[in-house]
Amino acid sequence: MFVLINLKTYPCDPVAVAEAARDVDETTDARIAVAPQATHLERVAETGVETWAQHVDPIDYGSNTGHTLAEAAADAGAVGTLINHSERRLKLADVDGAIRAAERAGLETVVCANNPAQIGAAAALAPDAVAVEPPELIGTGTPVSQADPDVVEDAVDAAARVDEDVTVLCGAGISTGEDVVAAADLGSSGVLLASGVAKADDPAAALADLVEPL
Amino acid sequence: MFVLINLKTYPCDPVAVAEAARDVDETTDARIAVAPQATHLERVAETGVETWAQHVDPIDYGSNTGHTLAEAAADAGAVGTLINHSERRLKLADVDGAIRAAERAGLETVVCANNPAQIGAAAALAPDAVAVEPPELIGTGTPVSQADPDVVEDAVDAAARVDEDVTVLCGAGISTGEDVVAAADLGSSGVLLASGVAKADDPAAALADLVEPL
Amino acid sequence: MFVLINLKTYPCDPVAVAEAARDVDETTDARIAVAPQATHLERVAETGVETWAQHVDPIDYGSNTGHTLAEAAADAGAVGTLINHSERRLKLADVDGAIRAAERAGLETVVCANNPAQIGAAAALAPDAVAVEPPELIGTGTPVSQADPDVVEDAVDAAARVDEDVTVLCGAGISTGEDVVAAADLGSSGVLLASGVAKADDPAAALADLVEPL
Amino acid sequence: MFVLINLKTYPCDPVAVAEAARDVDETTDARIAVAPQATHLERVAETGVETWAQHVDPIDYGSNTGHTLAEAAADAGAVGTLINHSERRLKLADVDGAIRAAERAGLETVVCANNPAQIGAAAALAPDAVAVEPPELIGTGTPVSQADPDVVEDAVDAAARVDEDVTVLCGAGISTGEDVVAAADLGSSGVLLASGVAKADDPAAALADLVEPL
Repeated sequence: MFVLINLKTYPCDPVAVAEAARDVDETTDARIAVAPQATHLERVAETGVETWAQHVDPIDYGSNTGHTLAEAAADAGAVGTLINHSERRLKLADVDGAIRAAERAGLETVVCANNPAQIGAAAALAPDAVAVEPPELIGTGTPVSQADPDVVEDAVDAAARVDEDVTVLCGAGISTGEDVVAAADLGSSGVLLASGVAKADDPAAALADLVEPL
Repeated sequence: MFVLINLKTYPCDPVAVAEAARDVDETTDARIAVAPQATHLERVAETGVETWAQHVDPIDYGSNTGHTLAEAAADAGAVGTLINHSERRLKLADVDGAIRAAERAGLETVVCANNPAQIGAAAALAPDAVAVEPPELIGTGTPVSQADPDVVEDAVDAAARVDEDVTVLCGAGISTGEDVVAAADLGSSGVLLASGVAKADDPAAALADLVEPL
Repeated sequence: MFVLINLKTYPCDPVAVAEAARDVDETTDARIAVAPQATHLERVAETGVETWAQHVDPIDYGSNTGHTLAEAAADAGAVGTLINHSERRLKLADVDGAIRAAERAGLETVVCANNPAQIGAAAALAPDAVAVEPPELIGTGTPVSQADPDVVEDAVDAAARVDEDVTVLCGAGISTGEDVVAAADLGSSGVLLASGVAKADDPAAALADLVEPL
Repeated sequence: MFVLINLKTYPCDPVAVAEAARDVDETTDARIAVAPQATHLERVAETGVETWAQHVDPIDYGSNTGHTLAEAAADAGAVGTLINHSERRLKLADVDGAIRAAERAGLETVVCANNPAQIGAAAALAPDAVAVEPPELIGTGTPVSQADPDVVEDAVDAAARVDEDVTVLCGAGISTGEDVVAAADLGSSGVLLASGVAKADDPAAALADLVEPL
C-alpha cells in the first residue's frame, strides 16, 4: 500500500512530520510519502522521506509568474506530484498539461477526482495513478471505505476499463489502520491522508497505528 | 454527417444564418444545427432550425447569477449543447457536472477537447459525442483533416477504446465540402463549423457547397 | 431608490415577475428593474419592465464561445448589467473589461463587491454604481442594513472618496420595506433583491409591500 | 528606486542571480530585490539578498492543497510579494484577500495592474505599492517609459487620487539604466524587471549597468 500524507497548508512542522514518516517507513512494507507546500519541498526532501509536490502547473520553463514548474519541484527533491486535488481543481486540458509537465520532469503522478466517471476520465490521460476522494467526505473523519465503499470499487473498475496500468488510490476521512485495510480490500493500491497524521499530536504514533495492520 | 455551426459572438444575424441552415437542411441527408449565443436561442429556435447552446453551467435551479442553466436553454428551444469548447474550457469536475446538467434537461451533449488523450477523458464522462479541435488550427482556414489527419483518427480510436457509444466530431479550419468528406473518411461522424458559414456573405450558399458532396 | 431584482437561476416564471415589477413600478417613485437569465432577457424586456443582464463578459464581437456579449444583451432589451456578483466573481482586469464592454453597448453598470475596500476598488473603475453585498448574508433573510449597518456606511464613504459620481447600492438579506428604508438612511441609493421577490408566492404583493414605505 | 527582479520560471540559476543582486545592491543607493519561484525562496533568501514571493494565495492556515500560504513564504525568507501579476491574475475579491494574507504574515505588497484605472482600483485595496505593466509590452524589450510614458504618469496620478501612501512602480520592457531613469522621471518609485537580468549572460554586469545612472 502507498500512503501519501498531504500536509496542505496546515500549521504543522513539515520536517517533524517528514522525519516521523521516514522512520515509520523503515518499519513497514507500506510505502510512505509526504506532500508539503512548495516552499517546504527542499527541507522535507532533506529528511530522506519520499517527497511529493501538492500541485504542478501545465507549463514549461519561461514567462510564468507565481506558478509551480515541475522541474523546480523535482529539483527541490520531489519524486511525484498530486494533480487536480479537490482544493486545486484544474481545467480538463490543464490536467492533461500538468501530467505531461510532470512526466517531462520525471515526477510520478496521482490525479485526484470526485467520482468513478471522473476517475475514468483521469485514467484516460495516462497518469501513474488516480485517487478518488468524494469531496463531501474530505475532513470529516468518516472514511470513504465505510461511508461509500461502492465509490471505491466503482473507481477501480472505471480506471481498469480505461487503462489497466493506472492504479487507484482513495482518500477522504481515512485515519485508522482499519480504514487502510478496508481501502485495500476494495481494490485500492493506496490512500491519501491529511489531517489524521499532519494534525496529530504524535505523527509517528499516528502513522505507526495506521500501517500496523498491513 | 452532423454539421454544427457555432455562431460564437460573431456580428452575424443569427436568424438569417438559422434560416439558411434550416433551408439547406431540407435539401440534404446531412443533419444541420446552429449554436447561437444564449440571448439568441429563442429567436433561432423559432426559425425551426435544430438549435444548440454553446455552453451550459454545472448547476441546478437556485442561487446562481450570470450562469447558463441547462433547463433555461432547453426551455428556449435548444436540443443540445457544446461543453468545454476551447474558448470556454471547464474544470474536469465541471465538464462532468455540465454533462449531467444537460442530461437532466434533455439536451444532447458534445464535449470538445484538444487532442486524442483528452478525447478519451471526455468520452469516459459519457456524453453523446466528443469533438476534437486542435486549438492551433481554430480560425486558420486549414482543415484539421488535412493539417493533422492523425489527430482525427487517433481521437476516433481513443473514444472507441473508452466508450463505443460516444461518436466523434472534428473541427478547426473546416470550410469546404471536401474537408467534410475528408473528416468522414477519417471516421468522424460530424463537423464543427464557425466562421466559414457564420461570416460568409451568403451563408446558404456556403452551407449548400459544404454539404453538396455528402 | 433603485430596486433591482435578480432572478438568478430560480425556478420562477420570469415573465410573471417582470409583469409584477412593471405594474408596481407604475405606482411608486422607486425605480424597479428585473435581471433575468440571458436566455430570458428578450421575453422579460417585452413586458416593458426595465431589464438588466446578470453578467456580461469582457469581450467584443468575435471568436468567443459560451460568453455573454454586452451588445447581444442590449440588443435583447437590457439597459444595464450586474458585474462581478459574488456568484460570478471576475478577475480585477476582467471587471474593468466588462465595464468597458457594457459602456460600449450603452448598458448601465452596477459592480458588486464584498466589503468597503473592494467597493473603493470597484468605484475606481468608474462604473455607474457599486453594490456592497457581504457574502455571508446573501440568502439569509437578515438584512445587511440591520446585521452590519457599518458596512453600508463605510461602502458609501469608500466610493465617495474615490469617485463622487458613483452611487452605492446594497444587498444581501433585504426583504421588507423597512430594510429598504434602513438602506436609504445609511446612504444607499438602491437595493439588490433576489429570493424575497423572485420566490414569493405573490411577487406583486411582495414588491408592493417593499416599496410602500418609500 | 526599488528594483525588483522577477525570475518567473526562467531556466536561470536563482542563487547566481540572487548573489549578483546582493553584490550590486551593496554598491548603489537603489534597493534591489529578487523574486524566485516558491520552491527557491529559501535558497535565494540564504544568499542575503532581499527576497520576494511571486504570488501568495488569499488563504489562511488550513485545508488548502497546492496553494502558497503567505506565512510559509515569510518563513522561507520572503519579505514581500507580488500580487496579481499579469501572468497570475486574480479575482478582485482575491486580490483583496491576498493583500490581507500578506499583511498578516508581515509581507510587503506590490499589486500589479494593466492600466491606470486598474491601478486606482488596486490602490483602493491599500497595498504598499502598485505596479503598472501594460501586458502588450511585457517581454518586448520596448520600455513602457518610452512606448507609453502617459500610462506611467496616469498610473501615478490614479494611485495618488485614491491613496497618497501607495507608491507606484512600473514594468514591461525595462532593460537599461536609461529606462530606469525615465521611469523615475515619470514619477515611478521603482521598476519590475525580468528577462533583462534573469536571462543575461552576466546578471551582475546587467544589474550594474542598470543602476549605474541612479
